[in-house]
Amino acid sequence: VLHEVTEIDRGGQRVRVRSDEERWEPFDELLIATGALPLRPDLPGLDGPGVYGAHTLSEAGELFEALERDRPSRAVVVGGGYIGLEMAEAFRRRGLHVSLVDQARQVMGTLDPDMGVLVADALERIGVELYLEEGLKAVESEGGRARAVITGNRTLAADVVVLGLGVRPNVALAEGAKIPLGESGAISVDERMRTEAEGIWAAGDCVETFHRVSRKPFHVALGTVANRQGRVAGINLGGGAATFPGVVGTAVSKICELEVARTGLQEKELRELGWEFETARIESRTRAHYFPGSGKITVKILWEKRSGRLVGGQIVGVEGAAKRIDVLALAVTLGLTAQDLVDMDLSYAPPFSPVWDPVQTAARTALR
Amino acid sequence: VLHEVTEIDRGGQRVRVRSDEERWEPFDELLIATGALPLRPDLPGLDGPGVYGAHTLSEAGELFEALERDRPSRAVVVGGGYIGLEMAEAFRRRGLHVSLVDQARQVMGTLDPDMGVLVADALERIGVELYLEEGLKAVESEGGRARAVITGNRTLAADVVVLGLGVRPNVALAEGAKIPLGESGAISVDERMRTEAEGIWAAGDCVETFHRVSRKPFHVALGTVANRQGRVAGINLGGGAATFPGVVGTAVSKICELEVARTGLQEKELRELGWEFETARIESRTRAHYFPGSGKITVKILWEKRSGRLVGGQIVGVEGAAKRIDVLALAVTLGLTAQDLVDMDLSYAPPFSPVWDPVQTAARTALR
Repeated sequence: VLHEVTEIDRGGQRVRVRSDEERWEPFDELLIATGALPLRPDLPGLDGPGVYGAHTLSEAGELFEALERDRPSRAVVVGGGYIGLEMAEAFRRRGLHVSLVDQARQVMGTLDPDMGVLVADALERIGVELYLEEGLKAVESEGGRARAVITGNRTLAADVVVLGLGVRPNVALAEGAKIPLGESGAISVDERMRTEAEGIWAAGDCVETFHRVSRKPFHVALGTVANRQGRVAGINLGGGAATFPGVVGTAVSKICELEVARTGLQEKELRELGWEFETARIESRTRAHYFPGSGKITVKILWEKRSGRLVGGQIVGVEGAAKRIDVLALAVTLGLTAQDLVDMDLSYAPPFSPVWDPVQTAARTALR
Repeated sequence: VLHEVTEIDRGGQRVRVRSDEERWEPFDELLIATGALPLRPDLPGLDGPGVYGAHTLSEAGELFEALERDRPSRAVVVGGGYIGLEMAEAFRRRGLHVSLVDQARQVMGTLDPDMGVLVADALERIGVELYLEEGLKAVESEGGRARAVITGNRTLAADVVVLGLGVRPNVALAEGAKIPLGESGAISVDERMRTEAEGIWAAGDCVETFHRVSRKPFHVALGTVANRQGRVAGINLGGGAATFPGVVGTAVSKICELEVARTGLQEKELRELGWEFETARIESRTRAHYFPGSGKITVKILWEKRSGRLVGGQIVGVEGAAKRIDVLALAVTLGLTAQDLVDMDLSYAPPFSPVWDPVQTAARTALR
């Protein structure tokens, strides 16, 4: 049975629980795993009819039922991140007219612009209309139904609206107990997933983690990271000893026919850090050019200028492209150079790769 | 125009070339790239009609023409390595009855027996009959056609016979010029691809390379290694400076529905080296279990007992399995431990992986 915890009493080592009646539950050790909450700007009409999030399974269920019941013909998706793009694609596959609005200049802001544009092209090829550099202003409804999305530039007719504006760590409970947050606004934890409060641990989308390339605090809301942190917290809570070493920002997604992957730091992050860097970007094939199913893959790598160590990588390509990011994830974690990568004995056979793996082709280009 | 070089005169810095007439061609620098030759045991009937190799494109062309012309119904493949298995599968797909003979206990000897059996099972599922621990004794012909393959245990009717018995480095020219060979029987070269003879270089299937895990001389005949060595030799011959650091024995292949990959040292190699090691073997899925196309993947890792460093990995699984070997190739090259691998930020999304990548699931099992 799930009960809502409404308050943590640190001194008394107890939590206030709301079920049928309120009561206090004592603890020796407490784990906060409150996750993340969707970002919802304070704009007119966002709580109106026909406006959906894509955060919980029940929200998705409601949206699915509405699609089946009302057969809307025009969808507007607000937000060009993973969730927004996946929703836009899914609406198109159901035959809806789809517009996607984002205030940024590009979709998939976790990629550099020259890689993000490949994703934008794929969306446009399936008929998604992109309205970039346009901020959401309001959603209008009429007769209990959504009618339009108002951006800074235009009014888009909409029967259904989905918000995919990202998330923020859900830290209300921790803040209420004065458990310190980090600079990202998520709960500060050490490598064992301990908060700064005695006996209180935290893991998952609500905590701040450590970026192994920038060596700075970093917040990322991804299931795989949450799962790994939960395991570390669990081992420690159970009396064992485990540490979570941080992340390098690896993420992967499938948008239309494209596999999209990234790891490490992207250009805007490197500029914010003030690091001098260089980049190489190549086009290759996912398999030998003559092998059935061979298709285009674009690989970009980024390295620190002085040391030559790789600090980031991005991949966009057809089936078989994405998982190559794991090689780059190891490379940036370990500070390998492009030459180190060229020297690696990676696998080749015509169904799997050109003779030079595209990741190594990018590294060779970097050496020029 | 290709001319056959029949002799190297080291002192005179010239090679004897056979074209219309014989002549001597002077050189300042010489590159030996004589490749490998198929192993052909000295047994009765192997030069007879209906017996094919699978070494050159013209051999494959002859075999293909014979299949089209004679419509044979029974094929016997001798040799259970990559080439033999690929040929057996191809014959089955053309509808032939296929028997595969190998004197070893298992097919795909580059895998440990517990992984090789997965490949054998896949071959048997498509109807290839395996005759293991049976040495080839002779091939019989009759009326200008192949009739049967004789093994130590039986006679197998055969209209067409393919030999896939592996290769040996083609070193006759080098031996004739007293250019030293290494302990593997291939031409000894340094990391710049120089032979021990002044001004003479060698690269590709004819040279001995260095195994970065065992740190021993090693011979491997693979296109990707040859390509990389050729590039290093070419840079050096052109006045530049490049080194070839060696290999870790990475190889990948597709057999029936299975992707098969290996890197580093396998059990028999570790036993030969006298290294104490341990292994872990897990079954997982190529994608999230609920995602279309998700299928079985088996991952085995091997590590040195004392240090815990990973020394080998093997993967057998359906589409999407094989390229994960590259992560293990980096791990064994760099001497990472299972804990290091668990700590890596590998990519996850349902189309690509379970939340824990199977390679990390194997590493977690190793930590128990």
